[in-house]
Amino acid sequence: MKDVTDFDGLEVGYDIPALPGMAESEIQTPCLVLDLDALERNIKKMGDWARAHGMRHRVHGKMHKSVDVARLQERLGGACGVCCQKVSEAEVFARGGIKDVLVSNQVRDPAKIDRLARLPKLGARTLVCVDDPENVAELSEAAVRHGTEIECLVEIDCGAGRCGVTTTPEVVAIARAIDAAPGLRFAGLQAYQGAMQHLDSYEDRKAKIEIAVAMVREAVEALKAEGLACDIVGGGGTGSYYFEGSSGVYNELQCGSYAFMDADYGRILDADGKRIDRGEWENALFLLTSVMSHAKADKAICDAGLKAQSVDSGLPVIFGREDVTYAKCSDEHGVIADPEGVLKVGEKLKLVPGHCDPTCNVHDWYVGVRNGKVECLWPVSARGKAY
Amino acid sequence: MKDVTDFDGLEVGYDIPALPGMAESEIQTPCLVLDLDALERNIKKMGDWARAHGMRHRVHGKMHKSVDVARLQERLGGACGVCCQKVSEAEVFARGGIKDVLVSNQVRDPAKIDRLARLPKLGARTLVCVDDPENVAELSEAAVRHGTEIECLVEIDCGAGRCGVTTTPEVVAIARAIDAAPGLRFAGLQAYQGAMQHLDSYEDRKAKIEIAVAMVREAVEALKAEGLACDIVGGGGTGSYYFEGSSGVYNELQCGSYAFMDADYGRILDADGKRIDRGEWENALFLLTSVMSHAKADKAICDAGLKAQSVDSGLPVIFGREDVTYAKCSDEHGVIADPEGVLKVGEKLKLVPGHCDPTCNVHDWYVGVRNGKVECLWPVSARGKAY
Repeated sequence: MKDVTDFDGLEVGYDIPALPGMAESEIQTPCLVLDLDALERNIKKMGDWARAHGMRHRVHGKMHKSVDVARLQERLGGACGVCCQKVSEAEVFARGGIKDVLVSNQVRDPAKIDRLARLPKLGARTLVCVDDPENVAELSEAAVRHGTEIECLVEIDCGAGRCGVTTTPEVVAIARAIDAAPGLRFAGLQAYQGAMQHLDSYEDRKAKIEIAVAMVREAVEALKAEGLACDIVGGGGTGSYYFEGSSGVYNELQCGSYAFMDADYGRILDADGKRIDRGEWENALFLLTSVMSHAKADKAICDAGLKAQSVDSGLPVIFGREDVTYAKCSDEHGVIADPEGVLKVGEKLKLVPGHCDPTCNVHDWYVGVRNGKVECLWPVSARGKAY
Repeated sequence: MKDVTDFDGLEVGYDIPALPGMAESEIQTPCLVLDLDALERNIKKMGDWARAHGMRHRVHGKMHKSVDVARLQERLGGACGVCCQKVSEAEVFARGGIKDVLVSNQVRDPAKIDRLARLPKLGARTLVCVDDPENVAELSEAAVRHGTEIECLVEIDCGAGRCGVTTTPEVVAIARAIDAAPGLRFAGLQAYQGAMQHLDSYEDRKAKIEIAVAMVREAVEALKAEGLACDIVGGGGTGSYYFEGSSGVYNELQCGSYAFMDADYGRILDADGKRIDRGEWENALFLLTSVMSHAKADKAICDAGLKAQSVDSGLPVIFGREDVTYAKCSDEHGVIADPEGVLKVGEKLKLVPGHCDPTCNVHDWYVGVRNGKVECLWPVSARGKAY
């Protein structure tokens, strides 16, 4: 990774933001920093919860896109595998040694179906979601051609309003088609309610999941009546896992953001009306930035703009500071309101990104930090794997 | 790039969306597609305009982050070099053979200043912006240490509200400090008005640039009285180049988006009240996406969400279609309103991204297309170069 052409003696190379052993203060900005202690505590806490409630936890790898984080989630959190959203991401996780990979999405393009059908050859149990009977024949043909098995979950749209069928008869029809198709195995249901995860009120989220649980329960029973057992009934995110995990219907969780946290998720409230980033989960992910201009007295300009983060769910929050505020984001710059003029050029700030998933997606590296030192440099292994 | 481990015979490899020679219909989605004819026409048109008006054109490389596009801009558009926003980007362009590179931004971190001072060793004339007298000593020390020369532009904040000084005495003080500093050369002024580029009305943009021109003219004259000539007076973007280019004060343009166009820029109006994407510039950049679920009659789900684009400046527009609308964007999916149910699973759509710069920044490749065939596959050479 270190550049070796005309540049000599660079402590910080061409395309890496830090080296293990370096002091935290030497990290090049803008870059993603992981507080390893906080990350490990989050991972262990969710793993303990799942175990105590008899749930498997298939961690959402699309959030971090990192083989290293996924393996930590297996080791410390007892994760049973990963889910992700793209075939190219699934390939990265399978190559990285994850043995149980669900593409929790539809795969319809012939070239992508072909690649999915080869995934078991990398040693990974391979699962995918289906919401259209026509897809069953496409998947079956590819699995047979490659001599592999693809396990299929029927996706129920339980409120997210994206992919998935909405009625029990449709679920049953697709499940029967899967069960009858060579090369495929009917493995259960996918019912992730994504749209409600970010509702602030605990009671509002609970009401939405109760609707989802009722839909899923009806489908499970109808399938049972047909002799089709659901090994997997999957769903549940950081804003709802306790509902699905206590439903008696779901048996697999799919949480992602809990491990890193972000500003948007942090604002939602738990059963006691407390923000979930004030006790339930710790901020483990930060976007480190430097002040690089302070030509106006009340305004500092930092080096983390739209190329270093996604602001789709709001601006980042400056961690541990009440006196300065990230006020505006343009392509290359952040404008920081600094009414008292307390910031100095060169000063580093830790931003809590508004939305972790698409922010991680623009970076090549995670810099893992503990006790003020850089401990590891992990690639964002599946960054750019959008196919 | 083609994967060679357990996968065999893949026509579309692990991390490339297309191969040259392939039919356009075989391109893997989501990915960026360039209409090469439109791109070449845009580049040539702006080059002709600059030449006819006696302006140099230093194209903005931070928009496309592509050495291949920058070289096309030199060859077809007579570009005199590039500007970009980060030292790590500048390194990519210098290595790629661009001989004149301006980091149109402040560089304050010691490690970055050190890298900037080495850039001339790669054969590139190296320029940077300064808005703080303290930065002069830092840059000078590094240039002397490496035996190189850094040319400095004083940055004037003429309305963008980010970096840059706002008064002529500050400009003069910094220019004198640069002129006196070993290893540095005072090269002129940077005065890019970024905030007004996206104002819809031609007259509103004109009024803003008149303010900028007055500030710059005053600074140029004050510097002249001090015996400091401005070789470069740079600024001007896709929404304003005709104002700076006719001002008699500016001599270098810095346009970026004109080459690709995007939905947000496309909406601004020319002097005749016509959208600039209806005659002035062509859409040359598209985000190709596929429909991958249509489980609800009036709603199609496509595979281009927040991981494939930035929606900071609005949602993408579906090119050439009036009957369907990109209505909602989540991490991995786009929801397309399809009231008549005309779309089919597998169908591909060309999206015009809301904002080209941060959209290009999440992709690894540009697929260049002409006459329905893939002609080239260009890396987004400086993607992820945020340091």
